[in-house]
Amino acid sequence: MRATIMHKAGDVRIETVPDAAIKYPTDAVIRVTRACICGSDLWPYNDMKPDGGVRPMGHEAIGVVEEIGSEVRTLRRGQLVIMPFAYSDGTCTFCADGINTSCVQGGFFGSPDVGGAQAEALRIPQADGTLYPIDAGEDDALMASLLSLSDVMGTGHHAAMIARAGPGRIAAVIGDGAVGLCGVIAAKRLGAERIIMLGRHAQRIDLALAFGATDVVSERGDEAIARVRELTGGHGVHSVLECVGAGPAMDTALGIVRPGGAIGRVGVPHYGPVDLSSALFYHNVTIGGGPAPVRAYIDELLPDVMEGRIEPGRVFDRIVGLDGVPDGYRAMNAREALKVMVRP
Amino acid sequence: MRATIMHKAGDVRIETVPDAAIKYPTDAVIRVTRACICGSDLWPYNDMKPDGGVRPMGHEAIGVVEEIGSEVRTLRRGQLVIMPFAYSDGTCTFCADGINTSCVQGGFFGSPDVGGAQAEALRIPQADGTLYPIDAGEDDALMASLLSLSDVMGTGHHAAMIARAGPGRIAAVIGDGAVGLCGVIAAKRLGAERIIMLGRHAQRIDLALAFGATDVVSERGDEAIARVRELTGGHGVHSVLECVGAGPAMDTALGIVRPGGAIGRVGVPHYGPVDLSSALFYHNVTIGGGPAPVRAYIDELLPDVMEGRIEPGRVFDRIVGLDGVPDGYRAMNAREALKVMVRP
Repeated sequence: MRATIMHKAGDVRIETVPDAAIKYPTDAVIRVTRACICGSDLWPYNDMKPDGGVRPMGHEAIGVVEEIGSEVRTLRRGQLVIMPFAYSDGTCTFCADGINTSCVQGGFFGSPDVGGAQAEALRIPQADGTLYPIDAGEDDALMASLLSLSDVMGTGHHAAMIARAGPGRIAAVIGDGAVGLCGVIAAKRLGAERIIMLGRHAQRIDLALAFGATDVVSERGDEAIARVRELTGGHGVHSVLECVGAGPAMDTALGIVRPGGAIGRVGVPHYGPVDLSSALFYHNVTIGGGPAPVRAYIDELLPDVMEGRIEPGRVFDRIVGLDGVPDGYRAMNAREALKVMVRP
Repeated sequence: MRATIMHKAGDVRIETVPDAAIKYPTDAVIRVTRACICGSDLWPYNDMKPDGGVRPMGHEAIGVVEEIGSEVRTLRRGQLVIMPFAYSDGTCTFCADGINTSCVQGGFFGSPDVGGAQAEALRIPQADGTLYPIDAGEDDALMASLLSLSDVMGTGHHAAMIARAGPGRIAAVIGDGAVGLCGVIAAKRLGAERIIMLGRHAQRIDLALAFGATDVVSERGDEAIARVRELTGGHGVHSVLECVGAGPAMDTALGIVRPGGAIGRVGVPHYGPVDLSSALFYHNVTIGGGPAPVRAYIDELLPDVMEGRIEPGRVFDRIVGLDGVPDGYRAMNAREALKVMVRP
């Protein structure tokens, strides 16, 4: 079968690899009908060292169950399923807590052991706990939004939950990528009174406004902090959704959070140690977040997608086949494309 | 009048100072009937540099209203009141959020401008918002527990709230000082299933067990982390109440928190920047806390004190007059006394 393999920074190839196959009795194999390129895939696209190893790419997918292992109980062949970016058994103490990304038998897709979703097919460990069957056709009009539940919509929701977005509260979203834009949807869905989008890319800002952003701040660094404070009576915002993971983004988050406020961070951290000793302590700021337990959030978000109340699929602005994946990476990295859908 | 003044590390004196007096129309003056020495007073007792300045000490008190300014509306002379360690107007946006320690007109007692509570009397800024009238006699048997609502009980409660102590969850309390012991009360009161006390002082451990601790870990450092993990199936605890503020305490907190768990920190931080990039992120750990908005918590905690359901006053194990305050500092610093009450 064909799959996307990264060799080093800037070097993404479509290669023929052994077919995905059952390895353990709790596995399933899915035929991938939709996958996508993630903002987090751009980190190795920019910094992966050529150290001899290669990395199968892709951790977001919709697919059809093709094979099931002998111990799989809840799935059947032919079912259409959402594949969250992490696999999890659904039964351990952390899954029971709704923190599936820390599952004791869990892990992440897009690794040499498990393979990646930017491929024709994929082995799914812990299939019963991982895959989420959906009642839709393979080419349902809602497919883009359903695909977003495998990562970006659940991740934006996680940022909003950790940042405690809600009625009577002002939220700010740092990052105008797909996760940030889904964070806008999530903050609005949770009832935030105002939603300030920090971004400067015209197309993305338009989408943020369509999703419910009430204010846009296009400045950067200290000027962005000053502008957010100006918009909030000098106090800052209750909820910061930090959807980037870079140092300047965290600096901005720390600069705009209001006393008693919360920062929900979902961008893979690329910053050094953070001083928690002075303002953060005296202002009772909470910092939390991490890889979103999107599997646990599907129950809550799916009805809003199915009934059209939210349209996170609008973040996809380009569709490619497998052969178009390398150029998809290039386009997302150049910010020509917001989020690229892959139809293998 | 007489008041406690710190000149430098180890040098606490009882001195005659100008009488407390109304300075602004929103002030009141209280006659202090009970005050106490705080664990946080021991930081300057150990490290205050002799730089020419002096510092009036004490930020916890019960007192009787002696004078009120012309704009004070809700208080009357003769009322017995709890004085929280921070003053606040009770009307600003942060007070409305319940985060009185960030009040826009607020500040902390025990400063040259406001004075300290280890004294015969004290000026109270923003008296309407700050003071909490109580229906008790000056020598009520509950006085010690009522006094704890000015800081340590509210602070332990804050740690437990930020750490999300509650039913079905395991809490760990780091620090066997008065705040940590009140943290045990708070975690139990919020319904924590198990409460692990990290401490090694026999008298304090006995009190922790009386307050509801279910397990005691007397090891330190990596051994304490290993022991807590052993007690929790290897996973760590859901809620960490970090009630010290020293570096090793935060290291222990980070080492014992469970994926998806929360650290509520209330000890004044004496540690450097914290690495939030690896385990903390991948395990979705939340860190929050700061100076407790004890004024906001009195509504909730007072009925439990008045009706005897909690007895935080048991943390006081020594009573001194003003002349005994310097020795009280020495005794607390030597860990001979747990918490010293002052009857001026």
